[in-house]
Formats: sequence, C-alpha cells, structure tokens
Amino acid sequence: MKYHRLSIAEASQAIRIGEITPSELLESHLMRIEEYDDDIRAWVTVDKKGARETAARLTQESEQGHLRGPLHGIPVGIKDIYYTEGLRTTMGSPIYSEFVPDRDSAVVSTLREAGAVVVGKTETTDFAYTDPAPTRNPWNLQHTPGGSSSGSAAAVASGMCPLAFGSQTGGSVIRPAAFCGVVGMKPTYDLLSRDGVYPLAWSLDHVGFFVRSVRDASLVLGALTGNVMSPIKTSARPPRVGLFKGFFQDRADDVVWEGFMESVEKLKEGGAFVVETPLPESFSIVHSVHKLIMSSEAASVHQDNFRSRQGDYRRKLRGLVASGLLVPSSAYLRSQRIRGRFIEEVHRTLKGLDCLITPSAPTPALHGLESTGDAAFNSPWSLTGFPSITVPSALTEGGLPLGVQLINLPCQEEALLRVARWCEEALGAELWPPKYP
Amino acid sequence: MKYHRLSIAEASQAIRIGEITPSELLESHLMRIEEYDDDIRAWVTVDKKGARETAARLTQESEQGHLRGPLHGIPVGIKDIYYTEGLRTTMGSPIYSEFVPDRDSAVVSTLREAGAVVVGKTETTDFAYTDPAPTRNPWNLQHTPGGSSSGSAAAVASGMCPLAFGSQTGGSVIRPAAFCGVVGMKPTYDLLSRDGVYPLAWSLDHVGFFVRSVRDASLVLGALTGNVMSPIKTSARPPRVGLFKGFFQDRADDVVWEGFMESVEKLKEGGAFVVETPLPESFSIVHSVHKLIMSSEAASVHQDNFRSRQGDYRRKLRGLVASGLLVPSSAYLRSQRIRGRFIEEVHRTLKGLDCLITPSAPTPALHGLESTGDAAFNSPWSLTGFPSITVPSALTEGGLPLGVQLINLPCQEEALLRVARWCEEALGAELWPPKYP
Repeated sequence: MKYHRLSIAEASQAIRIGEITPSELLESHLMRIEEYDDDIRAWVTVDKKGARETAARLTQESEQGHLRGPLHGIPVGIKDIYYTEGLRTTMGSPIYSEFVPDRDSAVVSTLREAGAVVVGKTETTDFAYTDPAPTRNPWNLQHTPGGSSSGSAAAVASGMCPLAFGSQTGGSVIRPAAFCGVVGMKPTYDLLSRDGVYPLAWSLDHVGFFVRSVRDASLVLGALTGNVMSPIKTSARPPRVGLFKGFFQDRADDVVWEGFMESVEKLKEGGAFVVETPLPESFSIVHSVHKLIMSSEAASVHQDNFRSRQGDYRRKLRGLVASGLLVPSSAYLRSQRIRGRFIEEVHRTLKGLDCLITPSAPTPALHGLESTGDAAFNSPWSLTGFPSITVPSALTEGGLPLGVQLINLPCQEEALLRVARWCEEALGAELWPPKYP
Repeated sequence: MKYHRLSIAEASQAIRIGEITPSELLESHLMRIEEYDDDIRAWVTVDKKGARETAARLTQESEQGHLRGPLHGIPVGIKDIYYTEGLRTTMGSPIYSEFVPDRDSAVVSTLREAGAVVVGKTETTDFAYTDPAPTRNPWNLQHTPGGSSSGSAAAVASGMCPLAFGSQTGGSVIRPAAFCGVVGMKPTYDLLSRDGVYPLAWSLDHVGFFVRSVRDASLVLGALTGNVMSPIKTSARPPRVGLFKGFFQDRADDVVWEGFMESVEKLKEGGAFVVETPLPESFSIVHSVHKLIMSSEAASVHQDNFRSRQGDYRRKLRGLVASGLLVPSSAYLRSQRIRGRFIEEVHRTLKGLDCLITPSAPTPALHGLESTGDAAFNSPWSLTGFPSITVPSALTEGGLPLGVQLINLPCQEEALLRVARWCEEALGAELWPPKYP
C-alpha cells in the first residue's frame, strides 16, 4: 500500500473507480506517519481511531456508490489552532494543553461534510506566532520547516497527508509551503471562515492550506466554497505578470534572488509577459503598519491569559503582547487607515495584470530550529487580504526548495489558480524530498 | 406666500400640479429665515443666490413638465459638517472657518440630483461633539435645541425648511429632533453614505435627517436610496412593541417618564401589543463602550490638528480627544468586541417584535444653552448601527415637546417607518411652536 504519492486528484479518481478505498488510502498515510514522524514531528495528535472509523464509513459509502465529491476519503491534517470536536486542540501552548473543544471549527465541519478524513492535529508555533514548533524540514532535518503552520507544511511535504490546513497572519502559509517545497494557498480574507480558529490578530488572520499541486488547490478550494473550480485548465493566453524588485531584491538572499530571476526567465521563455512594476507608494511603511495592527490585536486576544499566566508565554509572543498592550488606539486606528490606502494602491498596481510575482521568502529554509524565518514578503498581502499562492520553483545547490509567490485581486481565486497552474507547468518543479520518497 | 407649513408631500404635490413653483416655495422659506433667524440662529450660511438659481432652474424644468421626483424643488438645510461644493463648510470650528470644499458630499450630491434646493448650512456643535452651537430652541429661546445637529432641528421646527440633514454619533439626530418637536431619523449605519461628512468617530457616525412627519421621512429615504417607500400606508395590523424600563426609567426625568407612559397607554388603546422587554445582558456597559470607541476614533481624526491648534478646540471636544489619545488599542479592540456581542443580543431582543420603544431623551430640552442634553437613550443604537426614529408624542406642561424613539433591525427601515406612522397617528401629536406659527 504505497499511496502516499497520489495527488488529491489521483486519489479521488482511484476511489471513484473503486481502485482503492478511503481506508486503504488512510492506512498508507498512517504508515508514513508511523515511519517518519519521530524524525519530522509534524503531528501533535494523530487520531488513528477516529480517522479509521471515518474512513470505514466513507469506504462503505463509496462501495454503495455514494461519493461526496473530490475530497471523499482524502486524509487531511489540521493545524492545532482549529477547534476539532472531541479532539484535543492545544494552540501550541501549555495553557491549552488539555483543551478538548466541544465543536468543530467551520472549516473542519465543511471538510467532514465533504468526506475528508481528519487524520489529526499538526504542530503550530505557540498561538500561531513565531516561537518555533518542534517540527523539522523533510528536506533537511537540521532546517526549519518555517512557521507558524509548521506541521501542516512538513506533513504534506513528506507524504503524510495530501492536504493540510494552516493559517496566515504574516506569512504562516506561504513561507512554510515554500520552505517545504509544496503549494500553499491563502485565499482572500474571510473567503474561508475563521470561525473556531484561535485568533492571533483577527483582521489579518487567514485560513489557508497546503497541497502538492495547483490542480489540487483548485479542487480543495472548489470543495470548500461550493464553486466549481475544477479541473482548472492552463490559461490559453500566457499571463501578464507584474514583477516587484526594490525592497524584494534588497531583502532577498543572493541565492533566492538569483533563483527567482532564473524562474522569471523560464516564465518569459514560456511566453509570459513580465513587466517590472513599481512598488505602491505606501509600501515603505506596510511592515510597521502590519506589526502594529498584529501586536494590538494579539494583545487584545491575550490580555487576560497574559495577566494570569505570563510564565506560560514564550519569548516572542510575550514581546508581541507586551508591546501591543502599549499601543495607543489612535496609532492602531491610523494604521488601519494607512492599510486602507495601501489596499487601494495595490488595486491600482494590479490594473492590467494577471498577478504580481515575488520570491515566496527572502531565504530558503533557515538552518536550525530557532527561527521560523522572515515573513516580510508575505505580510503585505496578509495586510491587504488579497489572495496569494506559492508554487515550488527550483532547488538551491544545497537541496532546499524555493518558491514563487503570486498575488491577485480579492475574490479572484479562480484567475489566480489559472495563472499559478500556468507557472507551475512553465517552471516544471514538482519537488519531493529525497530522504522521504 | 405662506408655504412654510406645507409638508414635503404637500409641497411636492403642489409643484406637480403647478399650484406653486420651486422658486415660490424657496422664497417663502427664505422669508422665514429672514424674519426669525436672528432669534433662532439655525444657520451658519444662507446661500440665497445659489438657492435662487437652483430654484429658478427647477421651476423652468417643472414648467416644461420635467419633474425629478418627490424632492423636486424642496428646500433643504445641510449641517455644516457636510462638504458642499463652493459653499463654506466650517465644521463649527475656527480651524475650518474659511474652508470651501471643492466637491459635494455624497448625500448632498444625491439631493441635488433629486431636485432638492440647498438653502444653506445649518449650525453644528464644534465638529459635531457637545460644545454647544449658538442655536436656540424655537419652542423656548431660553432652551437648547439639543445637539449636535442643532441648526437642522431648529430650522425644520420653525418652518425655515421642511427637510434638513444632520448626523448622529451618540444622539445627535434623535435628541434634537425630540427637543424641537419634529421627526428625526437615523437609518442603518452606512445605508446613507458618510462620504464627504467630517467624521467624529467613523464607526459610530450616521447620516440622518429631520422632517415634520413620518410620511415625509419615507419620501426622503425613498428618494435617497432609490427604493420606493412612498406613500407608506399605516400598517393594517397594530404593532408589537418591546418596552424597555430599567435603565430608561431610572435615568429619565419624572416628567419624561410619565409622559412616555401616557404615550404608551395611547398606543395600547390604539391596539398596539406592548410587551415589557428585559434589557440585553451587556446593556450595563454599552455607554462606556460607546464612549471609549468614540474617544479613540475622535482622537485618531483630530490628533494632527490637535497638536498644532489645541487652543482652537473647545473644552468638551478637547477632553474627548485628550482622553482618546490615552486609550490603549487593546481597550479599543475589546470595546469593539463587546459591541459585537451587544449587537447580537439586540438582534435576539427584537425577535418577534416590530420595534423597541423608549423615550427619545431623558429630559425635555434643557434650560440654557450650555448643555445640548444627554444622549444616553440614543447612543446604544448608534453603537449597534440599527435604524431609529423619533416621533413627537406630547408637550410638557411647560410647553416643551417630548418624543418616543423607535428602534428596529438593520435595513428594516420600511418596517420601522410603517410602525412609526402607526404610532404617529395613534399619538396624534403634530406639533408646531406657538411663537413661530
């Protein structure tokens, strides 16, 4: 039973025609977890019993010819800040180490209805901020998988599940996806419900997910929104892509920028029209604005716990909350107003373009587990709430994945996925970590 | 030419059948202003020239059989915080004493398209907060007309125009309307655009207006929203009305509460089903929450001017801004979250009811011009953003008007107007100040 390399589309098709059952698909993935999770540590909780029961029920249903859709029988990992009924949800924090929700988050509930099999809960940094989780990068165990959705990215990258959910407030989906060589997507703010997802900073928090191809991303998003987005066809017309330099070039490692420009060349060779695009005027302050909003809202979320259990907060989140408690409301409100202006500017920037493109992170996955990496290339799009996706683009000489980040206008997911599919084919970088084949 | 007592509906009909012209209607109102505004001081600026030109053009149009709708030729007063192209807009403050906008606010622009004749700008408290305007109450010049839309309320009450626009952040439409014995309406938050209206606290600011009957309110709202709401028929079925006591009874003057309960009795006699309704659980903190949000947002709006021109701020607004600058963002955000809970609770409270009823203010118009009165009965509905309307209900022994405030669910203006019309008929209190007949 070696089904762990099947994409969602392939597994779904195999289940549909009775070639495999949901139970067999699950067992194949459970075996991967059994075999490799001591190394990788992607999972906080593996719910073997619950997952097996669900898979058995779905096997029965499919044998009776009842299929719930493209996610029928697909194993899924859920970041441990999503409420899961009857299944411990720790938020990555000792404060919630024994917390068992009595209901599902909205996304988990939709996934269950769509026939997905919840395998368990994946590692998150403490409350989805930057204090690292124990997870390691499947490409090199000495390196971080990125964060905060560390377990979800590593689980998908190592074939422990073909789909996992995470969240992004700064760069917590796009960055770990890029570090782990998978496809990560953050749809438009609020397109997928945040209900039952523990907030870090609610006006910035996005539900997002990890898969191994753009095709799979479109299947998942279609299943969650009820819009048919599948099968996405490569756009006939090569895309018009806006290329940011400036801040991005300055902040990126040489290895990242060179790899990125090579990828851009490949896109051009494929026929893409790539036009260098000036950064919006207020771009220079978006990172301060993002940080100020994030710290203010995080402080509001945590202020009660923080008073009574400050010792249970780790260093970085403690700093964030403590600094957020000092922000005057007038500064917060001014930041929200600058945010509005930045959103308008990005709207104008995207005029006549199919997407913007940047490297997905300033570095490849960093050595060591102390830092989950830099969100500076992603947080502007968490601030705007515009949809973004990362597609694997290349490997460094050291054998670490790189990715390109594509950004489009709000609620233009279908168009964004079409361009991403085009880029995925032009780049031809379907990656699989050599140690976990 | 004594047309100042015509309602909008009557004037509109008279213009339609050619009985009077827009120019005649305007002159009649200009004459009232000429005659009485030295006493009442409702106007900052009367734009005789501009209004006469507009009225002449509309007269020509109507003579050619072209009528723009129910507001064709209707004189309107505009609170002096609404941008009016080419017409000085002072915000009631020395800081803007010479400011002439180069564009109209959205509402003014819609009004002009609908054929309304902008007579001029009405007095507002400084930046629509509580430092009093010079306006006096037409019912008794020793008394405040209420605020912050002081001029608009007094102008309509004294027959200087049949329609005037104001704004409400706490109780700045409902309270002055009640103090002046007219109908005041504050539709759902954001139903009428705040574009070009100087903000006091933008998440609480509502556009609202003053007229002399519920029928006129429905004409105006219909003209502004493009929904046909006219002519509103009395609802066949007597309404189910939720009556709040507790806080409202405790805070109200005896004369207000007694008058209010007599009005409630009249509604019952008319067949209304009045049911005492418990206050929502979080009602006890809504006033603090409202104040904290208002001060934070006002501080954000004013912080730059406040630094350079603190001497031009009057006492109450200075206190509001200074205290708002000290609010930590976590407190602001917590207030916004409590606000969300309160909104849900009021939704539940309104279940099965056609509206809630309270007195429109805790007192009749106060003696003296130092205070514009207490917004405590109105600010909870500015906080929820639910539509509210005040209808004159009685006169005190001292000859000052009282009103009842009706509240309904968001975007249920048509239903609210229907109930208000029913109550207006049952109460039978069409009021006109004896000194300005």
